[in-house]
Amino acid sequence: MRLSALRPLARYLPILEWGKTYNRDALTNDVVAAVIVTIMLIPQSLAYALLAGLPAEMGLYASILPLVAYAIFGTSRALAVGPVAVVSLMTAAAVGNLALQGTAEYAAAAIILAFLSGLILIVMGVFRLGFLANFLSHPVVAGFITASGIIIAFSQLKHILGVSASGHNLAELLHSLISHLGQVNIPTLIIGVTSTAFLFWVRKGLKPLLLARGLKPRTADILAKAGPVAAVVVTTLVTALFGLQNYGVAIVGDVPRGLPPLTWPSFDMSVWSSLFGSAVLISIIGFVESVSVAQTLAAKKRQRIVPDQELIGLGASNIAAAVSGGYPVTGGFARSVVNFDAGAETPAAGAFTAIGIALAALALTPLLFFLPKATLAATIIVAVLSLVDFSVLKTTWAYNKADFAAVTATILLTLGFGVETGVSAGVGISIFLYLYRTSRPHIAEVGVVPGTEHFRNINRHRVNTTPDILTIRVDENLYFANARYLEDYLFDRVVGEKDLKHVVLMCSAVNNIDTSALESLEAIDHRFRDMGLKLHLSEVKGPVMDRLSRTYFLHHLSGRVFLSQYEAIQELSKSADDGHEAETATN
Amino acid sequence: MRLSALRPLARYLPILEWGKTYNRDALTNDVVAAVIVTIMLIPQSLAYALLAGLPAEMGLYASILPLVAYAIFGTSRALAVGPVAVVSLMTAAAVGNLALQGTAEYAAAAIILAFLSGLILIVMGVFRLGFLANFLSHPVVAGFITASGIIIAFSQLKHILGVSASGHNLAELLHSLISHLGQVNIPTLIIGVTSTAFLFWVRKGLKPLLLARGLKPRTADILAKAGPVAAVVVTTLVTALFGLQNYGVAIVGDVPRGLPPLTWPSFDMSVWSSLFGSAVLISIIGFVESVSVAQTLAAKKRQRIVPDQELIGLGASNIAAAVSGGYPVTGGFARSVVNFDAGAETPAAGAFTAIGIALAALALTPLLFFLPKATLAATIIVAVLSLVDFSVLKTTWAYNKADFAAVTATILLTLGFGVETGVSAGVGISIFLYLYRTSRPHIAEVGVVPGTEHFRNINRHRVNTTPDILTIRVDENLYFANARYLEDYLFDRVVGEKDLKHVVLMCSAVNNIDTSALESLEAIDHRFRDMGLKLHLSEVKGPVMDRLSRTYFLHHLSGRVFLSQYEAIQELSKSADDGHEAETATN
Repeated sequence: MRLSALRPLARYLPILEWGKTYNRDALTNDVVAAVIVTIMLIPQSLAYALLAGLPAEMGLYASILPLVAYAIFGTSRALAVGPVAVVSLMTAAAVGNLALQGTAEYAAAAIILAFLSGLILIVMGVFRLGFLANFLSHPVVAGFITASGIIIAFSQLKHILGVSASGHNLAELLHSLISHLGQVNIPTLIIGVTSTAFLFWVRKGLKPLLLARGLKPRTADILAKAGPVAAVVVTTLVTALFGLQNYGVAIVGDVPRGLPPLTWPSFDMSVWSSLFGSAVLISIIGFVESVSVAQTLAAKKRQRIVPDQELIGLGASNIAAAVSGGYPVTGGFARSVVNFDAGAETPAAGAFTAIGIALAALALTPLLFFLPKATLAATIIVAVLSLVDFSVLKTTWAYNKADFAAVTATILLTLGFGVETGVSAGVGISIFLYLYRTSRPHIAEVGVVPGTEHFRNINRHRVNTTPDILTIRVDENLYFANARYLEDYLFDRVVGEKDLKHVVLMCSAVNNIDTSALESLEAIDHRFRDMGLKLHLSEVKGPVMDRLSRTYFLHHLSGRVFLSQYEAIQELSKSADDGHEAETATN
Repeated sequence: MRLSALRPLARYLPILEWGKTYNRDALTNDVVAAVIVTIMLIPQSLAYALLAGLPAEMGLYASILPLVAYAIFGTSRALAVGPVAVVSLMTAAAVGNLALQGTAEYAAAAIILAFLSGLILIVMGVFRLGFLANFLSHPVVAGFITASGIIIAFSQLKHILGVSASGHNLAELLHSLISHLGQVNIPTLIIGVTSTAFLFWVRKGLKPLLLARGLKPRTADILAKAGPVAAVVVTTLVTALFGLQNYGVAIVGDVPRGLPPLTWPSFDMSVWSSLFGSAVLISIIGFVESVSVAQTLAAKKRQRIVPDQELIGLGASNIAAAVSGGYPVTGGFARSVVNFDAGAETPAAGAFTAIGIALAALALTPLLFFLPKATLAATIIVAVLSLVDFSVLKTTWAYNKADFAAVTATILLTLGFGVETGVSAGVGISIFLYLYRTSRPHIAEVGVVPGTEHFRNINRHRVNTTPDILTIRVDENLYFANARYLEDYLFDRVVGEKDLKHVVLMCSAVNNIDTSALESLEAIDHRFRDMGLKLHLSEVKGPVMDRLSRTYFLHHLSGRVFLSQYEAIQELSKSADDGHEAETATN
């Protein structure tokens, strides 16, 4: 009895489910995973805050309470939430319209953005609107991520070169970088290029080396993931020892020591309303990315995640980020895989990671004073270049030209006009192309395969037809976008056919007929009657027939509805023969 | 040779086609029809100009050159173009945002709107974009026309009452009318109410009376259509005789005598760009209305119209309207039916009508001086109330709730926020609801009907299944909007099924699999493999299989592709038995 009474609560609090069976083994595994993820997350959090144009500590703050919130409300056992590259870029684009980087308004707007994004995600979760995310087609998301990766990499070049540059699209960034090329700072360039080269080597060359030395694959993998920490430690030490900040190397500087301040986002209607659109985009992109990572990892253990509850989990994380001085967060791919590989068993691993980051915020921040921004930029560049993947162009070109058009437009528009234009246009183009395709459905004229009851396209097979019966098979749902096309097709087809008496519409592939299509069928029937033709239907599916029988259409229909196309041809040929015999008789 | 050389020209100039066989009989029929349509069109043109807020003569001008242009470029043999009610209302809404009624800027903006609309229609015709009009579902158009009719009728009440009022939506109109109720002009009210009552009687009561007196139905019909002319003549005479203009009756006044001036629309980038959106809506609404009238009439004579060429015909008409002082035009329903019933055989009837209206502009305009605006308002009210038809609410409620939602929203938004908001929202809602519906497709778990090779829904029929094979039939195309839904459905379904070994996806109703869905299938296959399951496909359609075979999906697929579902079950049961035997053998 008590358990079933808990159920509605358990829907919103998955922690009640896995918490019941939590034991020492799971605890050990979760703590080990949390330690590894913490080490990986510290430099990432600082770097992504830099990418978002925010103070470094906001990256740390966004990696504490949000993880606890997700541990309570999330359904994935391995997802690690926190600041991620693409959402950080989108934050910079959204907030950059309202305030200048470095100002208090800028940071306040990022906090409001997290709060709005959290509210939107929770509302979507409560009303089970997760399906809205489906309107982002996979190729559009792939193109968007690739283009974002390129923009992110170029946006970080200024830190590697030690110049100031800005821009939310590729043209602005390139123009800004080129016009500042004269001011390149050599010590910064050396740190940046060395760090980038080192991190690339760690990613590509270190693991094989460790394996060759006899390490276990898992250990080698985790060690390779710690590369950024090594880069951070070494470059910070070098900068501190040689006082490189005096030679123009930009450093992180004073990072407030301590836990995040708990605050409430400031309410300013104009700021809220101007951030709303961006918050919707960030919520949906973040959700799509996060769910796909979570589903991939859950499937490996035959676990399941609940997408609508994930919305609530991510929403709670973003609210948590907003009230603790963070900025928009979502589930990250790389860190979730590390978390999973390191053996995390429950969302508690996330809560332990939060404790790790909180300890870092308490103890380590003074050590970050001399950390060069160039090192953080190098970790971002190496991380995002793995997002850049143009293979989607090749696969869509081979498989589906409409998808190719959508992904190309998304990439070009994202590069040319920034992330928000790119992803909005991608959604619009996907929907338009789908409607366009279904608005011109495949329509086949069919005949019977001799000696069988099967009907096939007359252009592809040797089939028999009779001049007084025309059978048309439409391979698409009939709805407003293609209703007129069907009308036009049928009239063009029958005009001038003097022997024709019957037109049979074979509906075996029609899953739905909407009101527009119903009216088109009525118009077709009406006009056919004027022409002395009869309209018949065959192989109408059960649910479609249920609907049709609630209308007058079937009463008014000049012809009949046949269960099978074979029956239609048999019955109609017979009546034609009867007519012919009758004629003969009267002669 | 010469004919075939002409063909590309004949595509754009249908006149070359029907002109070849034009003879004395056709000429006689066309002239008779033209005379009747001219008599009907004169009061209509004046009235609709009034509705659009334009000087009366612009209505006449819009009924001369545009008809000639359509005669040359149009494909319908009976369509009568000119000013129509809904387009006139949309013109008033569009132009009213830019200028005050009665100013030269207002008239100039209406001319620009016609020009833009003409250009848009021609571009759509040349690039064969007529399918864009299909995104307006029939119920949305029906709801829009009904709501427009109500707004139009209320907008004319001020002329009947003799007060000044304005507004582009119902609330504005009602508020404005009520606040002016104290200023009602009694002579105007008498003329207005009498005319309205007379015209209603003509429409409903005259024809039966004439039939009872022994007139032929066609003659009675045409005489009844001349009612507005009688109202115009009588009220003009009464006003002139009693000098009612001195008692506050608003009259048409000085209408310039002569043919329209040929001009070029003024070019002002800001005006053009602010009218562009309205021009798109007017073009599409005008085209949809016009094509449906033209198709209905063409079918009655087994003729055909070419929608993409209709775009060019209507585009040319609007350009002609713009260069001759008119405003946006399209094919009208009532006048086209009259034209058809009166025996029009070719588009030449339209050109002869144009001559008739031109003669009226030359000779009759002085006689229109004393015509009361209340009479014109009465003709509009009686004409548009036939557009108001709420039956679409009933039919869609019974047939398709999504269509009901779209039509209700369109009606409410049109009434509440005006025509442009209403129709834009209608399109958006139609598309959203279609995507929503297809994003949650009907998915059935199927089993074999005992003793047959047929597979049916396990929830609807008595069928056999085996615990190690799950067969799922998806009754929808697989594309981005439902790809994730399918993933979620399948994972939810298989989690916890310990005996399950094979999942067969029966694709008999799948007409298309886009890149997103393909990636979902790959993800499903990948995760199933992690779970120790095999994914199979059955009954994949030819075109879908053609596409799939161009990808790596089939190479990587854990299971097989079966031609028929029956074959799938037979083969998979056999292999399961083999496995079982093998197990038994090792025991």
